[in-house]
Amino acid sequence: MSVNVLFAASEARWSEYEGPMRDALAAVGVEAHIATDMAPGDVDYIVYAPNSDLQDFTPYTRAKAVLNLWAGVEAIVGNPTLHLPLARMVDPALTQGMVEWVTGHILRLHLGMDAHINAAPGTWKPKAPPLAFDTRVTVLGLGELGAACATALSQLGFDVAGWSRSPKEISGVTCLSGPDGLDEALQRADYCVLLLPSTSATENTLNARTLALMPKGARILNPGRGPLIDDDALLAALDTGQIDHATLDTFRIEPLPADHPFWTHPKVTVTPHVASETRAAYSSKTIAENIRRGEAGRPFLYLVDRQAGY
Amino acid sequence: MSVNVLFAASEARWSEYEGPMRDALAAVGVEAHIATDMAPGDVDYIVYAPNSDLQDFTPYTRAKAVLNLWAGVEAIVGNPTLHLPLARMVDPALTQGMVEWVTGHILRLHLGMDAHINAAPGTWKPKAPPLAFDTRVTVLGLGELGAACATALSQLGFDVAGWSRSPKEISGVTCLSGPDGLDEALQRADYCVLLLPSTSATENTLNARTLALMPKGARILNPGRGPLIDDDALLAALDTGQIDHATLDTFRIEPLPADHPFWTHPKVTVTPHVASETRAAYSSKTIAENIRRGEAGRPFLYLVDRQAGY
Repeated sequence: MSVNVLFAASEARWSEYEGPMRDALAAVGVEAHIATDMAPGDVDYIVYAPNSDLQDFTPYTRAKAVLNLWAGVEAIVGNPTLHLPLARMVDPALTQGMVEWVTGHILRLHLGMDAHINAAPGTWKPKAPPLAFDTRVTVLGLGELGAACATALSQLGFDVAGWSRSPKEISGVTCLSGPDGLDEALQRADYCVLLLPSTSATENTLNARTLALMPKGARILNPGRGPLIDDDALLAALDTGQIDHATLDTFRIEPLPADHPFWTHPKVTVTPHVASETRAAYSSKTIAENIRRGEAGRPFLYLVDRQAGY
Repeated sequence: MSVNVLFAASEARWSEYEGPMRDALAAVGVEAHIATDMAPGDVDYIVYAPNSDLQDFTPYTRAKAVLNLWAGVEAIVGNPTLHLPLARMVDPALTQGMVEWVTGHILRLHLGMDAHINAAPGTWKPKAPPLAFDTRVTVLGLGELGAACATALSQLGFDVAGWSRSPKEISGVTCLSGPDGLDEALQRADYCVLLLPSTSATENTLNARTLALMPKGARILNPGRGPLIDDDALLAALDTGQIDHATLDTFRIEPLPADHPFWTHPKVTVTPHVASETRAAYSSKTIAENIRRGEAGRPFLYLVDRQAGY
């Protein structure tokens, strides 16, 4: 018997996902009908992008789960019509892409690359950059993505601390937690990487008070979520030199409006939400595995805790 | 009894090394007199930079070893007056610095960072870069530095091959060797990192023939030695698009002359020989350990094979 899968995302996503999704479902032995339009009462699984038109889940009476295409679920988790199990996207490619973005953008600043790339012909001022051994990175948020980044940076030689709301243990990483732990984590952050979920508790985690706790000249990377930073406080800290640079991949409004001061600030690098891009070939496998599990009566992977919000 | 150590390098190096060298010798329990000027017949050890004024080793009749401050020894290994044991510099900081330079400069290109850094305000074209999993890096040369870089890139997820003259085994790295192995290594190199020693056998390892073996649009990084590349052949390959980019840290003449075409070529990044900078605090420990060994009658570490030239 065939399973009905509704693909609720943009047309552009569908053209990207149609082939990989069919391949992934076939690979796990699930016979499925998958389409972008389907009578709600016939739908067994909803593959979902939070910016989809589908906002009322009430008519999906037969559906067994909503399988999110993205890691972030804040745009759907509070939907009052959603009573189905909700799984977030966890796929090795998404985690890997984040590790590469975080590592690469830290190394750009750490090595002082721009000075070489933009040097006038004949400029020869060899000055060894500091070593990772002597450079402290703090990762805020130790979920899938934060833990992977902290581990990769530690393996590369950086002196890494991580912070999470509840205590964690990660080999090679100094793990801090709770409110006092957050202050301590920021006080030792030559680089601070924001990978917290976006919730009411994490909004403005970096604000005037917490930015002032960091060592003078610290650098910030935000591949997490825009609301984690108080934008005005960050701009003020960049202007005083308290913060040396911010590399930002996520924003309160996306696309980042063309008149936002981040675009032209000399100490800000904007990347267009590419750090945690899902890639169809890989994420389709995660979706297919969860459908296989649902059909086999096994527990879904990566279910969201609706109370905690992530 | 005190050991006499001649520091034969530039004045600038001496001001950088004097404190760290005294600290490192004290730390291993060697009582030493170290200075930049000393009667040759009194010298027990020569700490040496190949660009030093000292080129005639004949009068150093009592010396037990020449301890090179740099990893590269090609400027001293052929000196006909040198009959003393010669040790090259191996220190964890030098290796670490190389790993950071190689990893960072590959990730800059891999992530397409420049397009974001230089984007006009309001440019929002999220396009996920390829993943390291699907990106092949070849490291030519699997000595201390090459092996460390190959391992670090493999740990970060890249598909890494390494090539060396004689066969090696490195966990996580496809190791190739010999002339046929070199061609095979280049044929699969989306990125090629040059970390071979500079010898007559390795000169022009990248030439018109070998550059043509690489996949179209390959990228080259040379933190090794300038003569490994035929500059004219590289420029020609960049102009046809066969090679997409070259990030070069070493050159046939250093400093790279201001009128060299590398400075202004849009597909070339020049860094001023910073990838393998020694750092006094760390490299002094390697020197001190070798002096301690010499005094204890134990074999020196990191001796150069004078026949092979490295």
